[in-house]
Amino acid sequence: MRTEKVGIVGVGHTKFGKRADATIRELAHEAVKPALEDAGINIGDIDTSVIGVAADEFAAQLSSGVLIHDYVGMKDKPTFRVEAACATGSAAVRAGWALIKSGLAEVVLVVGAETMTHVGTLRATELMARAQDTRWEYPFGLTFPSSYALMATAHMHKFGTTREQLSLVSVKNHTYGAMNPYAHLQKSITLEEAMKSIMICYPLNLYDCCLISDGAAAIILATEEKARKISDTPIWLIGLGAASDTMMISERESLTELKATRVAAEKAYKMARITPDDVDVATVHDCFTIAEIVAYEDLGFCQKGEGGKFIEEKQSYIGGKVPINTDGGLKSKGHPLGATGVSMTIEITKQLRGEAGKRQLNGAEIGLSHNIGETGQYCFVHVYSR
Amino acid sequence: MRTEKVGIVGVGHTKFGKRADATIRELAHEAVKPALEDAGINIGDIDTSVIGVAADEFAAQLSSGVLIHDYVGMKDKPTFRVEAACATGSAAVRAGWALIKSGLAEVVLVVGAETMTHVGTLRATELMARAQDTRWEYPFGLTFPSSYALMATAHMHKFGTTREQLSLVSVKNHTYGAMNPYAHLQKSITLEEAMKSIMICYPLNLYDCCLISDGAAAIILATEEKARKISDTPIWLIGLGAASDTMMISERESLTELKATRVAAEKAYKMARITPDDVDVATVHDCFTIAEIVAYEDLGFCQKGEGGKFIEEKQSYIGGKVPINTDGGLKSKGHPLGATGVSMTIEITKQLRGEAGKRQLNGAEIGLSHNIGETGQYCFVHVYSR
Repeated sequence: MRTEKVGIVGVGHTKFGKRADATIRELAHEAVKPALEDAGINIGDIDTSVIGVAADEFAAQLSSGVLIHDYVGMKDKPTFRVEAACATGSAAVRAGWALIKSGLAEVVLVVGAETMTHVGTLRATELMARAQDTRWEYPFGLTFPSSYALMATAHMHKFGTTREQLSLVSVKNHTYGAMNPYAHLQKSITLEEAMKSIMICYPLNLYDCCLISDGAAAIILATEEKARKISDTPIWLIGLGAASDTMMISERESLTELKATRVAAEKAYKMARITPDDVDVATVHDCFTIAEIVAYEDLGFCQKGEGGKFIEEKQSYIGGKVPINTDGGLKSKGHPLGATGVSMTIEITKQLRGEAGKRQLNGAEIGLSHNIGETGQYCFVHVYSR
Repeated sequence: MRTEKVGIVGVGHTKFGKRADATIRELAHEAVKPALEDAGINIGDIDTSVIGVAADEFAAQLSSGVLIHDYVGMKDKPTFRVEAACATGSAAVRAGWALIKSGLAEVVLVVGAETMTHVGTLRATELMARAQDTRWEYPFGLTFPSSYALMATAHMHKFGTTREQLSLVSVKNHTYGAMNPYAHLQKSITLEEAMKSIMICYPLNLYDCCLISDGAAAIILATEEKARKISDTPIWLIGLGAASDTMMISERESLTELKATRVAAEKAYKMARITPDDVDVATVHDCFTIAEIVAYEDLGFCQKGEGGKFIEEKQSYIGGKVPINTDGGLKSKGHPLGATGVSMTIEITKQLRGEAGKRQLNGAEIGLSHNIGETGQYCFVHVYSR
């Protein structure tokens, strides 16, 4: 029996942050439990799980997929782990969607989780840098801050983007993060604070960089028939686009775009039969503020080179053209690698359901999530409708 | 457009072994190139890839999925990595099948690869042990040899299985490995040699343990329509079963079976509409000789407890009831974690096509591959037909 549509019928989210109180399996359970309650089903109603965890070394645990799968009560059922660096969570959502559409499952649990803070910021930065090319780029000092700094200076040089515009992205995301009870850093910041924070890698200072966090997020996907039975407000995953790019950023044609975003977005828009103008709300990959500005452009929310102006004009605020990262984004909500993509799906689900609390926008019909792995080596774009 | 069947249209395999001459991406390319040649298509004809690599730490490379995907020429196209410990390759095949059946792709490249030998046997054993529960079992000394030794002694105690029967599995797999030009150890051994090799963990001696190897394997999957166009001899993937078990083996109800095999096999047989009696050839997970004996039973090739007798009677030799591991198995061919499951699929494909060289059996119609992750935390069973 084949399903026409795949629906999201349950979502659950841990508090992101320094979570020394919980191991990765415990965090996963903390997200799965509310997802089941949200859906009003039991763990036994789920056919299979897909687990998104990005890196072995953070938890010093290989094969954390079945570790989580067993701990949340899925023993005997099928599972595998999916990984796509910082886009792991969205890759897991894609795999979950495919399992349902393929007929292998009717109800799928997708869990994203990561524990990172216990290794400290420097070690975490080093470990993450190993997701880039460890033969030809990492040994020469390329980390994620330095890679995105190269993109930022290229964008500033070519389009006149300013450090102030970068900081404005941070101010916006902290504004919304302060309204999100699950966010790692729930505090508003001023433009002055953002501009004056310590330099990490020019032109990116502390407030241009996302957080290193622990956390987990879980969603339950179902066939159209099951989704309508389980939920009064299923949210439909109607478009999926994915793409990749060169492993080495030194091989890229341009540093002012992430081509994988353009390719993935085009596929997702086509499959969903929409244009960028139809998108009412989006979560985009703001691992660094420059990444959000580039995403505005590559997703087609504004012209190439006008991302800086887009944030300056508050077009990505609630009330603007496309409200973006209303959950605080990676910048303020946090970025536990495996959890991030699933968490993006959850924010869109909540906005489309009208359950986003203080940061709820009016009458959103179409949502989009955009998740980058590394510096665009992976990109996953999902489109959602009520 | 949806496909009824998914076909295997191309296969490629590196020599398994100590491959200090090649990095993981180079090994992957060495498998992908012959797979494309076998299919008679170009890399540009492929829609998406699924990459199976089991562990970050062997290659000191996170996110080896896109590293391989880019290196083999798939830039821009979608990819993600799949992981399920020692069953990573079979999980990747399952994910590739689902991508095609879901309509997200028509032609999928599945690559499994691992580099392990450079870290040395002790370090490799330690790293692999971290795929088991790192909080509650690994710290107390549980490695894979010791886990399977527990299963072996339990099987000996309960069913009278002998050390000689264990060694006979090794003799058989070396017999066939000696005929496989891609095998790590291409040499026959005598029963006496197997029995007298050094003790690793009682009752398992050196020849009861599979090899630590480098290697890669690649297959190309396609929709029924494309498969018939691309290949004169497509092999159909007609049954998929998967299951899991408790993360801790101390929580298992029994040590004389791997329950996940029983559950996964039942699903795969049902989906393929066959019984164990219909299977003409199989590759099973012989990470340790006891694992192959237990697999005979759990897959239904013989009654529980009669696995020792099954090998003693040569029922798993060519000419016996079900020829098993005609490629040499993990024991003689080698076990580069991510590559193993894909390699199993390749042996079955070759046997069903009639291209298995010296070890070819007559007129096989139905094949099966069985791949275990860890000590049965994961199991994937695939059924194939001509």
